[in-house]
Amino acid sequence: MKKMNKANNTLKEIAEILVASKSVLLFPHTHMDGDALGSSAALCAALRKLGKQAYILIEDEIAAFLKFLDKDFCTSDLEIISQPDVCLCMDCGDVSRFQKREEKFLSGKQKGCLDHHTTTVPFADFNYIDSTAAATGEIVYDLLQELPVELDKEIGSALFAAITTDTGNFQYSNTTGKTHQIAADLWDRGVDYNEVSVELYQNNRLEKLLLQTRILQGLHVFAGGQAAICGFTEEMLRETGGLRDEAEGVVEIMRNIAGVELAIFVKEVSSQECKVSMRSKKYVDVAAIGQKLGGGGHVRAAGCTVKEGYEKTIQVMMGLAEEQLKGQI
Amino acid sequence: MKKMNKANNTLKEIAEILVASKSVLLFPHTHMDGDALGSSAALCAALRKLGKQAYILIEDEIAAFLKFLDKDFCTSDLEIISQPDVCLCMDCGDVSRFQKREEKFLSGKQKGCLDHHTTTVPFADFNYIDSTAAATGEIVYDLLQELPVELDKEIGSALFAAITTDTGNFQYSNTTGKTHQIAADLWDRGVDYNEVSVELYQNNRLEKLLLQTRILQGLHVFAGGQAAICGFTEEMLRETGGLRDEAEGVVEIMRNIAGVELAIFVKEVSSQECKVSMRSKKYVDVAAIGQKLGGGGHVRAAGCTVKEGYEKTIQVMMGLAEEQLKGQI
Repeated sequence: MKKMNKANNTLKEIAEILVASKSVLLFPHTHMDGDALGSSAALCAALRKLGKQAYILIEDEIAAFLKFLDKDFCTSDLEIISQPDVCLCMDCGDVSRFQKREEKFLSGKQKGCLDHHTTTVPFADFNYIDSTAAATGEIVYDLLQELPVELDKEIGSALFAAITTDTGNFQYSNTTGKTHQIAADLWDRGVDYNEVSVELYQNNRLEKLLLQTRILQGLHVFAGGQAAICGFTEEMLRETGGLRDEAEGVVEIMRNIAGVELAIFVKEVSSQECKVSMRSKKYVDVAAIGQKLGGGGHVRAAGCTVKEGYEKTIQVMMGLAEEQLKGQI
Repeated sequence: MKKMNKANNTLKEIAEILVASKSVLLFPHTHMDGDALGSSAALCAALRKLGKQAYILIEDEIAAFLKFLDKDFCTSDLEIISQPDVCLCMDCGDVSRFQKREEKFLSGKQKGCLDHHTTTVPFADFNYIDSTAAATGEIVYDLLQELPVELDKEIGSALFAAITTDTGNFQYSNTTGKTHQIAADLWDRGVDYNEVSVELYQNNRLEKLLLQTRILQGLHVFAGGQAAICGFTEEMLRETGGLRDEAEGVVEIMRNIAGVELAIFVKEVSSQECKVSMRSKKYVDVAAIGQKLGGGGHVRAAGCTVKEGYEKTIQVMMGLAEEQLKGQI
């Protein structure tokens, strides 16, 4: 059932390269999610247990809910290892996803890539790209079976974080029986699911909840119940103390309303500019709407920038939504 | 590691009783959650495949997000089976949790109980109470191993719904390695996790979102940020069109606030009665608070009834919360 790319190396070959190395730098993509950082943290811990000099090289902030994963693994010091034996691209398949670190990545004596994204094609000296893996964490789990290191609670907890976040807690369509088999094995290795989950999901800032509640007070359902729109103004951010990133998830909440096909989320940037995120449930091509305004994205998740104030942007987007739902674009 | 109650029967014994029976009535608790209905639906489907006359006898409405589980299993007709061979108490351990059906339950030639709640003590003719099980769905899964019936996609999907809802999608502390082993096995039996998940979580009524937003506008954080409380009045239900069951999840949203250890949710039943749900994050024993008021449940999830109006109940619970947090109960 595995859709392996022909140019993939085996995990055994990759394990041998890592065992033979002295220093390894790991490169997760920018805007690290749980899988990018969790899979990197697990592998970094394992490599250190093997006596390697290993770091996760990053270029942006670690999101608050993921900070527990960084046990002195992460650094933004490009010279932490001057001439790394191995540079590994983690959970992404393109150096454009870490532009500030691209040169450093290319300086590795050997460059590798571990990823599960469907769009990734092998580009490094060695690669393991498996789009049937629910998370890069699953690939690291398999790789660890080939390494002479014990998969202990610390490593396992990072893998659980990677897997549970990237599968929407075992609910997304990428989740398979293997995902659960790995989770069961991690339990036997001492992982406390709830302990990881509390770190990931139970440390939401109160201000985030206040912001999301304030945003949803402005929810507007239109087009006969097929579309929903809401957003935040800068005033709402001030009023609630919430941060811009803390509105994440609201667009999915709208999409999850029964009957809603198209969800539109508007973020005021200034009195003359708003950013817009869109999601669709089954059939509307939101990338087409985004392209109308110079944006883009995927068929079910896209965005654009509107050079208007908040209220006007709401009107513009409602108009475009009505048009799209009528099949007029 | 299993904390079996001494008076438990074996699942083999229970399977033999069911195989020897001709008719079985299942009694989930009122205000059915995913586990009560999911575990009952799975067992009902299995019993019918064994040629039994089997129904789930209910006395209240099925929540919208759970309706897909009822494949003509549920009835509120007390005379659907006039003299049932077996009556089974599902996911609860006390006939007081189905008062309108108590007499019918007691009319069963043999009465049994399958439950995983810590406060349940064996009271029926035969019992299987395992507080280490994450869900009654896990117990039904084990019971099915003893029954001469194939655990197919239909049965497995109901079990997945039971397990995923009762474990907060595999995040609560009741989740164990076994929970994931079961989920992995259900995959092999054809269960599509995402299909079940879309039914459970992506068909939310708009009125539910309006109700939850209205409820969260009344959020109150107290005890130095360690506790949070909110709830709904009957007026909020009328105003938003939301149903009582659609407030589910708000107590977890409160618990997930950073620093909040104890979350309390108050549901107005009448001007003289409220139902209260509680969740704790790490150390507060909410069952102990519940028991103070004649309720009960688990250490991290419990409930009780307060014979007061909404505002007074909020006050009572805030007082108990402050006491418990000071270690005074």
